[in-house]
Amino acid sequence: MSAQQPPAQASSPGAGIVSLLTDFGLDDGYVGTMHGVLWSRSRQLRGIVDLTHAVPPQSVELGSFHLAHAWRYFGAGAVHVAVVDPGVGSARRILLARSAGQWFLAPDNGLLDGVLDRDPEVWTVDPERVAVGPTSATFHGRDLFAPAAARIVDGAAPEDLGAPCEDWMRRDVPAPQREESSWRGRVLSVDHFGNLISDVPARALDGDPAAWSARVGERSYPIRRTYAEVAPGSPIALVNSYGLVEIAIRDGDAARQLGVQLGDPFDVLRGA
Amino acid sequence: MSAQQPPAQASSPGAGIVSLLTDFGLDDGYVGTMHGVLWSRSRQLRGIVDLTHAVPPQSVELGSFHLAHAWRYFGAGAVHVAVVDPGVGSARRILLARSAGQWFLAPDNGLLDGVLDRDPEVWTVDPERVAVGPTSATFHGRDLFAPAAARIVDGAAPEDLGAPCEDWMRRDVPAPQREESSWRGRVLSVDHFGNLISDVPARALDGDPAAWSARVGERSYPIRRTYAEVAPGSPIALVNSYGLVEIAIRDGDAARQLGVQLGDPFDVLRGA
Amino acid sequence: MSAQQPPAQASSPGAGIVSLLTDFGLDDGYVGTMHGVLWSRSRQLRGIVDLTHAVPPQSVELGSFHLAHAWRYFGAGAVHVAVVDPGVGSARRILLARSAGQWFLAPDNGLLDGVLDRDPEVWTVDPERVAVGPTSATFHGRDLFAPAAARIVDGAAPEDLGAPCEDWMRRDVPAPQREESSWRGRVLSVDHFGNLISDVPARALDGDPAAWSARVGERSYPIRRTYAEVAPGSPIALVNSYGLVEIAIRDGDAARQLGVQLGDPFDVLRGA
Repeated sequence: MSAQQPPAQASSPGAGIVSLLTDFGLDDGYVGTMHGVLWSRSRQLRGIVDLTHAVPPQSVELGSFHLAHAWRYFGAGAVHVAVVDPGVGSARRILLARSAGQWFLAPDNGLLDGVLDRDPEVWTVDPERVAVGPTSATFHGRDLFAPAAARIVDGAAPEDLGAPCEDWMRRDVPAPQREESSWRGRVLSVDHFGNLISDVPARALDGDPAAWSARVGERSYPIRRTYAEVAPGSPIALVNSYGLVEIAIRDGDAARQLGVQLGDPFDVLRGA
Repeated sequence: MSAQQPPAQASSPGAGIVSLLTDFGLDDGYVGTMHGVLWSRSRQLRGIVDLTHAVPPQSVELGSFHLAHAWRYFGAGAVHVAVVDPGVGSARRILLARSAGQWFLAPDNGLLDGVLDRDPEVWTVDPERVAVGPTSATFHGRDLFAPAAARIVDGAAPEDLGAPCEDWMRRDVPAPQREESSWRGRVLSVDHFGNLISDVPARALDGDPAAWSARVGERSYPIRRTYAEVAPGSPIALVNSYGLVEIAIRDGDAARQLGVQLGDPFDVLRGA
Repeated sequence: MSAQQPPAQASSPGAGIVSLLTDFGLDDGYVGTMHGVLWSRSRQLRGIVDLTHAVPPQSVELGSFHLAHAWRYFGAGAVHVAVVDPGVGSARRILLARSAGQWFLAPDNGLLDGVLDRDPEVWTVDPERVAVGPTSATFHGRDLFAPAAARIVDGAAPEDLGAPCEDWMRRDVPAPQREESSWRGRVLSVDHFGNLISDVPARALDGDPAAWSARVGERSYPIRRTYAEVAPGSPIALVNSYGLVEIAIRDGDAARQLGVQLGDPFDVLRGA
């Protein structure tokens, strides 16, 4: 089948684009080295996007969160490489998946949970088919993931890299619980602005967000539409750009000012 | 007019280049998502430059400072997207401007002050003409600015995006004050090295920087030409690469070692 | 000779790629301005890789370390620009070098030590031949290095930029010392994960890493193959992806948890 595989199509708007998401940080040259491998091994690469490299070390949950909320803004043909990989060097498998015309490479540890929730095609990657030179026990981003991504960018068929897979790992993620007239969720992410991002989606609000409030700690805040509806320095709840309920302080830092942390309870209650 | 608009010219050295400046940080995937939108919506994009994403949250002043000192190093045809946007989701307008052959997109809050000081062409962007899909109330960088930039990169005429504008907002920025034989300025920026960058421009020094000294706190330092003129560990004043008077400590951190902060007084005095 | 110089070859896998390594940080627009100069001055640029900009200020040693371990993952034709430059503005020279088909630009201060150890070709760059516009005394990355790199990307001959050089500066780097049945090294780098990276290379271990242990402080750890061989939270020694002996804590931060710092002694001892 690989012989019939056409090269990446110019008509796919994401063709030639690779995104990277890791917990490597930007200080050590690890990410830059992956860029070097990609540029030197792919002839059809147009650009590399650093989705984020500040996933907390080994946090598959937050890596999965960021990938799940970003990939839909890329176009068909894009290749997403996600490496949050506490099992590097062990027998854990590497997955290649295709969903909505986009490609995904990640360790088989649940990192793709937010991607593989709808009828994907999945393969396991055979390290021997993608490695070039010796493979280290600690940096598969450089030695396996980046070379595999370069192959996909240049039009390789998934069958060239590995074999179909049905039994990929799924993480057991606690979902927000519906109670009588409320949702009991938690703080899933605290962003750069200190905004408290919950796991309660807008679609849980019966089509009427304004009829609900959000609560962290002792206080609750009616859900509004936009930061500008409260005065600078005031707390506000709203549906954010992820489609999740969030508590923020306008022009302030809610996490610090309200003393709230990742994982703390975050409730959404009927009644404004 | 849009029908006659030629596509971005290969002869414009900045054609196909988009720069991004925000206060989003690099930790959350916000910036990477904007990259995804740009790559997937533009066919003529060559590269994306992250000018800085470390503008202090909501600091229009520092965003404006960094943009004003960087854009001239890009070529004609480049598109600069600046999003420091405390008014996101409110009725504040989005501006598109053209100056010296380069393009600028920013909220109408003074962020373009360092760009629009010389006879620019300015338009307001109609959100309905650039949005694709629903527009969030909190992330116009992704939903409006990036799609608008992709349109400009691919050769859209400004009239395709909005209407001419004459009454854009200007910020009221305190300028350094000339006194008898001195300038009273302030610390406008503290850079990664701890260098204290003032708002006093070299052109205020009557063509003879060596005849002046710079002062923070109690002490003043004669203006020299280059760091190498003092011993490692010693303070030095000079005209820096922005064309502004700066106090630094050679191979040290002036902000920390001299105990000086953003906004502190910074005087430039006649006499070495 | 420059007339006969062919343009960058499409057949060189690294052609059109520029990597940047500096101690500028990412907060001030310095790096983004260099990107602007590169994109606007080169017609054959394909992409820019930010190797790292978090080299500690003025640390030629750590800049040299990161460059030495990254460049081999790029392809022939790539141009690496390294600017850790305590002597900026002084008479220190700028070097251009070619090694293994790749290009290097750096101040003449030892930053290229890990590159120039094998029969390189080296030139000094004449600032007057690469500068465009006035050259600041403090930001040669923007005013000289980036324009020089753009020239090389577009196929300039080294003779167009300067003159051959034989007497470049080498740093005096302390190497690990072999004692009777051990190596006395030091902590050369602490990475984003808190891993303690020594200067003792795997090739010093007589072909049998498993016969050795690594020691920091009072305790030593047998050298294993991969993090997965110990329980989460446990210390482990191994040969890392740089080919150097490292002590890590699985899913933890060895530097913090073991109280070890850059430069501390790091011994490798016979006996597991």
